[in-house]
Amino acid sequence: MLRNRQEPIITSWLDLDFYKFTMGLLVWKQFPDVQVRYVLKLRNKGKRLIEMIDMLRLEEELESARTIGFNKTDLHYLRGTNEYGERMFPEAYLKFLEGIKALPRVIVIRGSDELHVEVKGPWPIAIFWETLVLSIVNELHYEFELMSMTKLERASIEANGLSRLKEKVDVLKKHPDIKFSDFGTRRRFSKSWQYRVDEFLTEEFANTDQFLGTSCVKSAERFGLLPMGTNAHELQMVCAALAKNDEELKASHNQVLRDWWSLYETGLSIALTDTFGTEFFFRDFTQIQAVSWKGLRHDSGDPVIFGNQAIHFYKRNGIAPENKLLVFSDGLDLPKIVELQDRFKDRIRTTFGWGTNLTNDLGLPALSLVMKAVEANGRPTVKLSDNLAKATGPEQEIVRYKRVFGYDENPHAFIPCDY
Amino acid sequence: MLRNRQEPIITSWLDLDFYKFTMGLLVWKQFPDVQVRYVLKLRNKGKRLIEMIDMLRLEEELESARTIGFNKTDLHYLRGTNEYGERMFPEAYLKFLEGIKALPRVIVIRGSDELHVEVKGPWPIAIFWETLVLSIVNELHYEFELMSMTKLERASIEANGLSRLKEKVDVLKKHPDIKFSDFGTRRRFSKSWQYRVDEFLTEEFANTDQFLGTSCVKSAERFGLLPMGTNAHELQMVCAALAKNDEELKASHNQVLRDWWSLYETGLSIALTDTFGTEFFFRDFTQIQAVSWKGLRHDSGDPVIFGNQAIHFYKRNGIAPENKLLVFSDGLDLPKIVELQDRFKDRIRTTFGWGTNLTNDLGLPALSLVMKAVEANGRPTVKLSDNLAKATGPEQEIVRYKRVFGYDENPHAFIPCDY
Repeated sequence: MLRNRQEPIITSWLDLDFYKFTMGLLVWKQFPDVQVRYVLKLRNKGKRLIEMIDMLRLEEELESARTIGFNKTDLHYLRGTNEYGERMFPEAYLKFLEGIKALPRVIVIRGSDELHVEVKGPWPIAIFWETLVLSIVNELHYEFELMSMTKLERASIEANGLSRLKEKVDVLKKHPDIKFSDFGTRRRFSKSWQYRVDEFLTEEFANTDQFLGTSCVKSAERFGLLPMGTNAHELQMVCAALAKNDEELKASHNQVLRDWWSLYETGLSIALTDTFGTEFFFRDFTQIQAVSWKGLRHDSGDPVIFGNQAIHFYKRNGIAPENKLLVFSDGLDLPKIVELQDRFKDRIRTTFGWGTNLTNDLGLPALSLVMKAVEANGRPTVKLSDNLAKATGPEQEIVRYKRVFGYDENPHAFIPCDY
Repeated sequence: MLRNRQEPIITSWLDLDFYKFTMGLLVWKQFPDVQVRYVLKLRNKGKRLIEMIDMLRLEEELESARTIGFNKTDLHYLRGTNEYGERMFPEAYLKFLEGIKALPRVIVIRGSDELHVEVKGPWPIAIFWETLVLSIVNELHYEFELMSMTKLERASIEANGLSRLKEKVDVLKKHPDIKFSDFGTRRRFSKSWQYRVDEFLTEEFANTDQFLGTSCVKSAERFGLLPMGTNAHELQMVCAALAKNDEELKASHNQVLRDWWSLYETGLSIALTDTFGTEFFFRDFTQIQAVSWKGLRHDSGDPVIFGNQAIHFYKRNGIAPENKLLVFSDGLDLPKIVELQDRFKDRIRTTFGWGTNLTNDLGLPALSLVMKAVEANGRPTVKLSDNLAKATGPEQEIVRYKRVFGYDENPHAFIPCDY
């Protein structure tokens, strides 16, 4: 359930989310010199990381992960990734990856009541830390928890995890129309637990198209699965922060969409909708884009409202929603998945990017950890999202973004309403 | 040391020698309809396989290996193989591989005093069996041997293996100019032993260029090594067997060389010299080919005589031997390797494809097993080689080949003499 103590948590630079490579390529091509600062944030109220992990172990793990490098097989795997476009990672990018021998150092500062964890560096390299840090902190946290337990308590945690997984599989098999993938690298209970989950799911759904793949490249490699992912808020946020004025800021959103399309065309054309609020997204996403892109990803706010909005949006643009795809990825669990599937089947295609509740459902509380890009070339980044609790950035910048993206009349206007 | 009994020996179709893919591609392009028959042969005098392995286990393992198929990761790995030429396996070939769901059935017949093991099928598919069958038979044999031992005896076999490996490593480190690779998939003591050897060697020679890679694709993948291999006698033998008359037979040798070059150019340009005797090879290999090709592989006959012949040949053709490469791969052990290196260093480049003695040196006798293409479209194949014991084929055909390839005056003439 936990790793062999002699081996570090991270032993491969493929043991991270696929979207770090898909975004990484764009970033390397277009923003090689941008300096980005990422900060770890624990969203759970009243909880303090400093009391939940062994700080020395954290520093050890971060240092060990920092200098792994990409080996020949990693490069074969990436070079051979063809599912989203013929040879999607060009040779020059692979050469660049091959040349990276160390990531920027992660700085861990022990404050009086909390840890501060951050990393700063050139975007094309610093980008790889996000899910590595999250995976490490999570695993160390549960290691810490398990250490104070008896053997039987530990065994029952594992038993919990297995029976809950079995339950999920049983229900999913009764809903053969539900298609899902593992998006839980960042919040996994442990590396070995995620791999075990993926291995079980691979076998259980071997002859179906229900289990689509996993965001964890290493696990995809190990079990012959599809590596999955497109892009994250980070991309929109950093590009927005680089804008020199309000006009550029507003334009940056669609510029990112166009850049993404130029690079990957249909292959990875799933647009993340909530970075600056979904209401703005639907105003900004053009009809041509709506026709071309495969679909949309939902990551905050009410998913049912979002789904209805999306269907309405497609219809309004003369597009049959039945040919479009919604990827739900916000805090899913099985009842939510079943509900969303029931609501939207036959109306629009759906898939589910299942995170924490898939790879970390053993009965222990999950940490709501994020590792966010907070600064680009010294300027703060902002995310509005469709959930006030998920909004990030300095207050005056949030106010500015709301104004620029058209929410200034009503501060809550960016929470989408049902049409 | 041996595998987990619940798991079959072969669990991946990458767990075979790389040259099966490099030859496989040429065969798929040029000889898709040729039917080839392969037969297992034990060369050890006086030994009978029937007494050395569990026949039921053999049938189980063969049947289990038969239907594995290539998964997404296997295809990523092959698609990503770039070391011998940009995208050397074209998409159409990968699609073909993806489509193979089962290999032709291996037929095992229990004769009165020996097992007969053979397989027949379309060349592009049947080609994959060779090293799979050899790896399986070897592992089953040692499993059989170990079963009758005490725990301490088994432990000491492993200890032997480890100390012999340690000795090899120590000597090799004192000869930093020796470059070698693992060619021992076919004769490995067991899968896990080969992987362990490769893992140790990877670590021991991590910061040197001494350990070049391994012929076993799966092991290369696992340890981030270079997958190694070019082609085997099979290619020359089958193409020769397809010749309609003596003239075509004689011409087939150079035709194969030209086809190989067309497909891979410099990348895999190591010519195997002994299929029809090295004397003929040096008469047939043109000056242009000698200039273009990287080098030659030695697989039978006296390696010192061969090396001198090769140097003489290059000089005679106005080529500096210092820029050419000899790959020695015939029954190597450490003293031979050191001797050959000492003899040829500074005269011509060398590398060593180290087989049985690298992956199966634990104190138990090795089986001299081969799985040879004996028939192509119903016509027998012939190998002359530089070692009478390695010659194969029906006697009257051997006589014909000797005549066609210019050895008719003296039946032993194809054993090369020193210039």
